[in-house]
Amino acid sequence: MKNAKFIVIEGLEGAGKSSAIKAVLETLKSAGVTSITSTREPGGTALAEKLRTLVKQEHEGEQLQDMTELLLMYAARVQLVENVIKPALASGTWVVGDRHDMSSQAYQGGGRQIPSETMLALKQTTLGDFKPDLTIYLDIDPKVGLERARGRGELDRIEKMDMSFFERTRARYLELASQDDSVVVVDAEQSIEQVAADISHVITQWMSA
Amino acid sequence: MKNAKFIVIEGLEGAGKSSAIKAVLETLKSAGVTSITSTREPGGTALAEKLRTLVKQEHEGEQLQDMTELLLMYAARVQLVENVIKPALASGTWVVGDRHDMSSQAYQGGGRQIPSETMLALKQTTLGDFKPDLTIYLDIDPKVGLERARGRGELDRIEKMDMSFFERTRARYLELASQDDSVVVVDAEQSIEQVAADISHVITQWMSA
Repeated sequence: MKNAKFIVIEGLEGAGKSSAIKAVLETLKSAGVTSITSTREPGGTALAEKLRTLVKQEHEGEQLQDMTELLLMYAARVQLVENVIKPALASGTWVVGDRHDMSSQAYQGGGRQIPSETMLALKQTTLGDFKPDLTIYLDIDPKVGLERARGRGELDRIEKMDMSFFERTRARYLELASQDDSVVVVDAEQSIEQVAADISHVITQWMSA
Repeated sequence: MKNAKFIVIEGLEGAGKSSAIKAVLETLKSAGVTSITSTREPGGTALAEKLRTLVKQEHEGEQLQDMTELLLMYAARVQLVENVIKPALASGTWVVGDRHDMSSQAYQGGGRQIPSETMLALKQTTLGDFKPDLTIYLDIDPKVGLERARGRGELDRIEKMDMSFFERTRARYLELASQDDSVVVVDAEQSIEQVAADISHVITQWMSA
């Protein structure tokens, strides 16, 4: 396995994505990967970070349409993919992403119930065949995850959605994971140490495959 | 003709859209239309105006991808259509728009040469069957139009494109106008008075049809 790869961590609020990314980075470094960059979505470029703010903040007196939210997510993603991720991979730098397209499929497709044909049309139009080499989905009951997230402070516009939204989002995550061999599910309700050990094992196995 | 209608003015920089909109509003008022609202694109809601700024400004050190520009245009359009235009029309208020979807077709489709299937997919996905009842396209040689626009002050990121960009944009405008009975072409190289008279005539004829 010589070429640089794109690895993504996915999961609901409070699933432990930050700790998981640390585990990925440590495992890659132990395996001798020296050139690695980390990204987050939405965000990761100056413009994409502005779009992140617009998506996460409240818009008083103006309804942020579900379709607008989706378009802004893809606008931020295109900026990141074309300006950061693709150039990094082309130059031999591995990329570890905090969220990518699977988040839109799960939150906007599953959670917001935007029709599948709409989701597919936007994904195809903006990303074409580009996709992560490996995605680790941290699976957690949204009740447990949101409890953890609340402990960290104030919730943003999306984190304030009701429980059924997050149940639909999780269900879509699991559905997509079951259909795609490049997605591995890790039980995120385990201890942080066990989750990190599982991730390290997944990455090591995958790199030696 | 009882129901409220959506009328759009389209055209290149310096085509005289602002004067044309005044002519439309005066003609409608003379015809007894009392409830009218004006919109502009991109813009027209608090969020859409923020997106307008992002699209028009320079992004130092970061290339704004053509696809990102297109997605931001549609994000702004969805906010305006769903939160302003559709509710206005539903309540019996006529809407006069400074630009709408035809601008994206012409500038991003024609000027930026984004493929037709991509343009169609985004339009269908975001707007469905929604379209203006009447569009008046102010046709002008871009050399003449840009000379006028330069006289008004500094040019924005899109207005700074080269002449071939605007030639392609104009060609796409004319192509679309020839294919759509709801688009009327007005020669914008005439005097302001003659353009206003032509617009008044077009609207009056159309309302009595």
